[in-house]
Amino acid sequence: MNNSYNHVVQYYETDQMGVVHHSNYFRWMEEARVYFLKNNGYDYKKLEDDGIISPVIAIDGKYKKSAKFGDTVNIKLYISEVRGLKLKIYYEMYVENNLVFTGNSEHTFISKDMKFLNIEKTFPEFYNFLINEKELYLKEVAKSSK
Amino acid sequence: MNNSYNHVVQYYETDQMGVVHHSNYFRWMEEARVYFLKNNGYDYKKLEDDGIISPVIAIDGKYKKSAKFGDTVNIKLYISEVRGLKLKIYYEMYVENNLVFTGNSEHTFISKDMKFLNIEKTFPEFYNFLINEKELYLKEVAKSSK
Amino acid sequence: MNNSYNHVVQYYETDQMGVVHHSNYFRWMEEARVYFLKNNGYDYKKLEDDGIISPVIAIDGKYKKSAKFGDTVNIKLYISEVRGLKLKIYYEMYVENNLVFTGNSEHTFISKDMKFLNIEKTFPEFYNFLINEKELYLKEVAKSSK
Amino acid sequence: MNNSYNHVVQYYETDQMGVVHHSNYFRWMEEARVYFLKNNGYDYKKLEDDGIISPVIAIDGKYKKSAKFGDTVNIKLYISEVRGLKLKIYYEMYVENNLVFTGNSEHTFISKDMKFLNIEKTFPEFYNFLINEKELYLKEVAKSSK
Repeated sequence: MNNSYNHVVQYYETDQMGVVHHSNYFRWMEEARVYFLKNNGYDYKKLEDDGIISPVIAIDGKYKKSAKFGDTVNIKLYISEVRGLKLKIYYEMYVENNLVFTGNSEHTFISKDMKFLNIEKTFPEFYNFLINEKELYLKEVAKSSK
Repeated sequence: MNNSYNHVVQYYETDQMGVVHHSNYFRWMEEARVYFLKNNGYDYKKLEDDGIISPVIAIDGKYKKSAKFGDTVNIKLYISEVRGLKLKIYYEMYVENNLVFTGNSEHTFISKDMKFLNIEKTFPEFYNFLINEKELYLKEVAKSSK
Repeated sequence: MNNSYNHVVQYYETDQMGVVHHSNYFRWMEEARVYFLKNNGYDYKKLEDDGIISPVIAIDGKYKKSAKFGDTVNIKLYISEVRGLKLKIYYEMYVENNLVFTGNSEHTFISKDMKFLNIEKTFPEFYNFLINEKELYLKEVAKSSK
Repeated sequence: MNNSYNHVVQYYETDQMGVVHHSNYFRWMEEARVYFLKNNGYDYKKLEDDGIISPVIAIDGKYKKSAKFGDTVNIKLYISEVRGLKLKIYYEMYVENNLVFTGNSEHTFISKDMKFLNIEKTFPEFYNFLINEKELYLKEVAKSSK
């Protein structure tokens, strides 16, 4: 899976409340996503060059605890849903094993000329990779709910 | 209600997809929220000085169309839920009357020493203002669903 | 000249020092620059469409006082140097008539295919506008140093 | 010296020009600075807790080449000037051995109650560390200019 990524909280990510500004967690979800794809052989730069752009169409997050300047945030990412035109990813963020944030992002696929792409047909290898990751995730969920 | 705010999209808010980066919409929700409170007599700076901090505990957004550099984004904000310890706000964003984004933010209230505040008891005037705004919103919803 | 622009400091622009993070002043210089060009008939969006991209090649700033959340920052901008291939702009930022920041940005001009553009030859009207603004600035400097 | 730090360019750091937005280089200077201090035993979080705040009072940068999404930017940092009340740092950034950016930041030292701190008197160990680093830098400059 290679689905774990660490982000060290920067000073410029804090706000005057003394903790991380809430908008940054969505940026870290992107960092983790790009890192995960690259580590599994799908460099997002190359995907864009090959003609797959993957905009966010919905996103959400729940803040459990505040991450602070200097913290190492460990982000775990799971492919939770895959269809030809849609991808959904679930994220958990931890600081020293404490859950600080959970979130979801939903993506579609479009070509450079801004038409929807059904990746099951146009990029079957990538599609199969995502399907496989989703199944690994479902197994993990099944295990932990026993 | 005074619930309308305009944000002009800046160059630094775009990304290499040629449109606004999705994390910025959450920053604009904050801009609209702060502006709305101030315009209704509740300067957020003063609220913090008076001892009410209002962190985001959950947030979500749906992207309908892409806002672009130079666009004037009109943000409408509605108080959708108020309790002593919780506040929920709904947002719609438009570019030239086209809906580009909808979202929700959920807040709690804490004191400077990081304890939960029940604003119904500690800041009743502010609480009543929010309740009143929520009722105006419910009326508007009722009208538009007729 | 139309060289004045106001920015209201946002919560997400603060850091845990309780004031604006220093990187934001460079974003406000850009805001003021884009606003100034637009107000004088040169929409930067249109300039890019017409084939002039104007990257920053050098930038600097001096921090005199700290801007804070909620402050209205008044930015004054002056064209200080113009050549065919180069443009230099000087900025002053004020909060309630107190100088908080001064800075300079230096730009070059390139075409969409990333070649240098001599705007004196390729966009003479725009070049003349900039030259004229520079002369207004020099007059103002001369006046204030008398 | 331990004066080298790597930053991987994120998607959210790009703009519609297709390269990194120029304001981010100042954020990376901060990242490198915090990392350098920590690696040498001076956790900035702890420095703030101990009562040394170190705001930026001047900053500048020159853009040589554009960093792009996915690039690993190697940042080298050198203490170039130290006095009781002032610190100056010089930065070079490289992508695959190509120089993309050079910059300088200038800092002062203040206490939590916002008074200037002479660190030679109040934090002599930290002062001596900085002096020592500056001498290492001067030796390196002398060597490379032979």
